[in-house]
Amino acid sequence: MMLGSKVWFNGTIIPIDQAHVGLSDRGFTLGDGLFETLLWTGTHIRFFDDHMARLSRSAVALGFEIPRTTGDIKAGLEALAQDAAGASAALRLTFTRGIGPRGLAIPDTGQPCLIATIAPLNVTKDGVSLQTVAIQRNAGAPSAQFKTLSYIDNIMALAQARALGGDDAIMLGTTGNIACASSANLIMRLNGKSLTPALTDGAMAGVVRGHLIKAGLVEEANISPEQLLTCDSAALSNALIGVRGVQSIDHRTLNFDAYWLEKLQAAL
Amino acid sequence: MMLGSKVWFNGTIIPIDQAHVGLSDRGFTLGDGLFETLLWTGTHIRFFDDHMARLSRSAVALGFEIPRTTGDIKAGLEALAQDAAGASAALRLTFTRGIGPRGLAIPDTGQPCLIATIAPLNVTKDGVSLQTVAIQRNAGAPSAQFKTLSYIDNIMALAQARALGGDDAIMLGTTGNIACASSANLIMRLNGKSLTPALTDGAMAGVVRGHLIKAGLVEEANISPEQLLTCDSAALSNALIGVRGVQSIDHRTLNFDAYWLEKLQAAL
Repeated sequence: MMLGSKVWFNGTIIPIDQAHVGLSDRGFTLGDGLFETLLWTGTHIRFFDDHMARLSRSAVALGFEIPRTTGDIKAGLEALAQDAAGASAALRLTFTRGIGPRGLAIPDTGQPCLIATIAPLNVTKDGVSLQTVAIQRNAGAPSAQFKTLSYIDNIMALAQARALGGDDAIMLGTTGNIACASSANLIMRLNGKSLTPALTDGAMAGVVRGHLIKAGLVEEANISPEQLLTCDSAALSNALIGVRGVQSIDHRTLNFDAYWLEKLQAAL
Repeated sequence: MMLGSKVWFNGTIIPIDQAHVGLSDRGFTLGDGLFETLLWTGTHIRFFDDHMARLSRSAVALGFEIPRTTGDIKAGLEALAQDAAGASAALRLTFTRGIGPRGLAIPDTGQPCLIATIAPLNVTKDGVSLQTVAIQRNAGAPSAQFKTLSYIDNIMALAQARALGGDDAIMLGTTGNIACASSANLIMRLNGKSLTPALTDGAMAGVVRGHLIKAGLVEEANISPEQLLTCDSAALSNALIGVRGVQSIDHRTLNFDAYWLEKLQAAL
């Protein structure tokens, strides 16, 4: 069975070609939904509880009700992951506000939609090159505070970075400080400290980021573009890559500090 | 035949319950698409060419290719509108980047998806009450520059306005100036001039707004929140409502200037 040929769709595992979203689903018409990307390590889902805590927090803030228990969701994801046959894989939970009439107003009686998909994962540990782009994260707005289905700014930020020859983008927040990459958090070595941009500057509240802060290995800070110029080493973090070293920022080669990267990675 | 029971789906009119979007469509997974809302007046599509010009401009900026000719699209919309039986109706064109693998990177070989739907329209001319909200438009970013499927900030801005007792929101741009309502442009009467917030402050490039500017009836300006406090009269504009008077802003009652509103409306 090819990985990804089945999905968990509102509580049932079905073939992906039988799984469809209606044209009136607000996830499709308006980006009105949330998602989580989770790592299947080959044996278990890493940081499952943290992902569910974030999803739940985000859902409350956006006025969603998650239509399944955490236990149901875990069982659905684990059932999908059986096809990975012991290899690591990328799980994605997608959660929409469901069917609604025309317009932005949130319907009183929603039928939320909850879907899990799985895809093969090919993580490399090669250092990435980053390019600062012009598109900013809307600090303080739902599109930056939560992992919503409204991702166009990040898509185009990545495209800008690729056009500049980079692997990924560095996005500033609308506060003017550094925020994050297009789908990863940024960790920087600055004056001997390991810092990560603040949520108030538009950084995504990444699960790995949160874990490294709790472990005391990384501190949150407001980081200006000028400080970026003085950082010695840097890393990206997200649920799938864990921690990955940065080779260069805006064509400036950084110190690829394998010891520092391993220490961060080992905490996951 | 109930209005809305059929859709125009990648070139063919089919029943809506047979029209589905795949789970890997980037419109669904990432809000990676564009839409246009057009007015069927009962006899024709108002401002069709302006809508297509905006869609085309936006598609170029986001690196999309529209998979149908303008003539095909017009024929599809008009075929749908036959069910309106001479009444006005809301048409919506939804255009996604199509199926893609996991991740934000834009696939080389996309299969874009183009859909048109229709819904009954019930436009009232009652004045609306507006409430300034905290969520800002990300001035300069694709989510504000184009009518994309990534609409979460506007959805939550409307929800905030409703929670404050208003019918619609006034969103500031991240520049600090006034931008627009949740799905309409704002026109304000200030010192005898009819002004509308600038695109550079995060205003949506509305088709009716553009038409009123071209007609010399409205001027674009950077408008501060302080200036908002001194406006005598105001209106909202979008493709479906045309021009609609504003009753109050942040509980301050405005002058409902029927003559001014009629003059704007008459230009459409």
